[in-house]
Amino acid sequence: MRIGLDAMGGDHAPREVVGGAQVGLGHLRPGDELVLYGPEEQVAAECRQLGLTDPRVRIVHCPEWIEMKESPVEALRQKRRSSIAVMAGDAAKGELDGLISAGNTGAFAAACHLRLGTIPGVSRPGIAILMPTFYGPVIICDVGANTTPKAHHLVEYAQMCVIYAKLILNIADPRVGLISIGEEEGKGNPLVKEAGTMLKKSTSSRFVGNVEGRDIFGGRCDVAICDGFVGNVILKLTEGLAEGLFKTITHEIKEEAPDLVQRFEPITERIWKRHDFAEYGGAPLLGLAGVAIICHGRSDRRAIGNAVRVAMEQVRHDIKGLIASEFSRRTEVPA
Amino acid sequence: MRIGLDAMGGDHAPREVVGGAQVGLGHLRPGDELVLYGPEEQVAAECRQLGLTDPRVRIVHCPEWIEMKESPVEALRQKRRSSIAVMAGDAAKGELDGLISAGNTGAFAAACHLRLGTIPGVSRPGIAILMPTFYGPVIICDVGANTTPKAHHLVEYAQMCVIYAKLILNIADPRVGLISIGEEEGKGNPLVKEAGTMLKKSTSSRFVGNVEGRDIFGGRCDVAICDGFVGNVILKLTEGLAEGLFKTITHEIKEEAPDLVQRFEPITERIWKRHDFAEYGGAPLLGLAGVAIICHGRSDRRAIGNAVRVAMEQVRHDIKGLIASEFSRRTEVPA
Repeated sequence: MRIGLDAMGGDHAPREVVGGAQVGLGHLRPGDELVLYGPEEQVAAECRQLGLTDPRVRIVHCPEWIEMKESPVEALRQKRRSSIAVMAGDAAKGELDGLISAGNTGAFAAACHLRLGTIPGVSRPGIAILMPTFYGPVIICDVGANTTPKAHHLVEYAQMCVIYAKLILNIADPRVGLISIGEEEGKGNPLVKEAGTMLKKSTSSRFVGNVEGRDIFGGRCDVAICDGFVGNVILKLTEGLAEGLFKTITHEIKEEAPDLVQRFEPITERIWKRHDFAEYGGAPLLGLAGVAIICHGRSDRRAIGNAVRVAMEQVRHDIKGLIASEFSRRTEVPA
Repeated sequence: MRIGLDAMGGDHAPREVVGGAQVGLGHLRPGDELVLYGPEEQVAAECRQLGLTDPRVRIVHCPEWIEMKESPVEALRQKRRSSIAVMAGDAAKGELDGLISAGNTGAFAAACHLRLGTIPGVSRPGIAILMPTFYGPVIICDVGANTTPKAHHLVEYAQMCVIYAKLILNIADPRVGLISIGEEEGKGNPLVKEAGTMLKKSTSSRFVGNVEGRDIFGGRCDVAICDGFVGNVILKLTEGLAEGLFKTITHEIKEEAPDLVQRFEPITERIWKRHDFAEYGGAPLLGLAGVAIICHGRSDRRAIGNAVRVAMEQVRHDIKGLIASEFSRRTEVPA
């Protein structure tokens, strides 16, 4: 198995991506290989500095890279020798089994979609994240691949996430909720109303109806579907709010009961860890005819190392094949 | 001053609305009056049971009411004698200075908009909430009045919220952010991109650009603007996540350090109170040619009592007049 890593992707690249490859080596089986995409000299220098001399790690030279702030489509058109573009090209040629990037999400998703295409029956891939909650993780999709989806895209997300939830959450019959602004049928914007009607008719997932933000954290569903704009806002809001609340709690304890600070620390650390994106190792681009894992821009080596694990698991479990077989069986083909 | 209350609105109506009127009496000045709208017999019975016999509280008989789950427009068309419809009608006749409902938000907002109209220059009212954060409260607008706004509506929200922030947060030059999925200009969906371009050109507010969920809780802006669908998701997600996190923390402390439970309780209570919607007393429908306060469906008497205070403050501060004067001065009139 060969997994490609965008050595220039993320706030702490290339250092933490190279470090992540080092961590990720622990997940390799005999014959497996990691391939770092980036400017050879720079990446090799990082490898030397981190003492990474393992023959299972290769570098593929890419003289360009795409910055976080660049417009995805524009950047891909202009930087054909960027790490993301070259890596996606190699995957299209069958030279990689999985791809990982913590860089420009839009550019990475677009390059994967463009070069690898989607699984037959899937019109648009969606990014699916695992959101930790008191009642266990909930899968939220899409969190940013497509900010202006059609209703049938949301239905496809639901069908793909059901397969994903069965596989990684071990839930026999995952409950699917549609994120809206009221539980009642017919509440929401036009997109959600249309998708709700379609999901209700669909037999391929156990649809529990509209869910609100409260329900996502209240154990009402295992999968929550939304457009990529709403999903991305949710993702970043959750991060910001959790950080803010912990900051508030720590501040209050310091003010009111300084003697408790030390005793409280391991508790917050444990909770924090459970809410830590780095533990989850990135989010798959479901529906892609390939395995692509999108990491948080702030990923450190631990996060990248976990992403290597996640990518390998998805290849081994053949999630792509499972989705393909489900979608080929479907009789209900929307639009 | 006369403030109308929808006695049949909310999950705990009429009991908690009547109780809220009782609490709200504390905010009245000589000559002020509270008017309860609902079925006379039922409301009077609640008053008797709560020992509310104050002559400053009147009941206006309404034989009908709109349920939370009803379609707003349909319900308003059919239930012309509902508490919301009659109350909005009385306000239109100049018999009320402010209105409060914890009932069907859509129906209440629509009735107010229909009967009272908007301030000249404002095309659509927006619901503005105060979101507590570590760095102080942030105003978020719109959280549900209009799920399919145009870009110029978002610009109007920004202009109104600046006035509102100056007034209630005492900020001389409030910073306005546009909720999106990346800080870079041009990130987002078509609505946000268009609104961003307009806000950048606008001189009536200090626009700090796109903000993400993380920034809302990170002190980057005082006002955050979004469409009513996204805003409502944010509102309910925040509630759900905060509840979930506190549940997790309490659970962990019970498991790991049961001796700390008692000491930790006052700390969580204080933080919880700061995040408690009941303390804020509801959200105004900004841009309305009148004062309307929308309360959380779960409001108890304390929340309703606070809403009475908020409604009276908004009438006294003449927020309506301040917005009107700002909008009449504007030279930039979009679409």
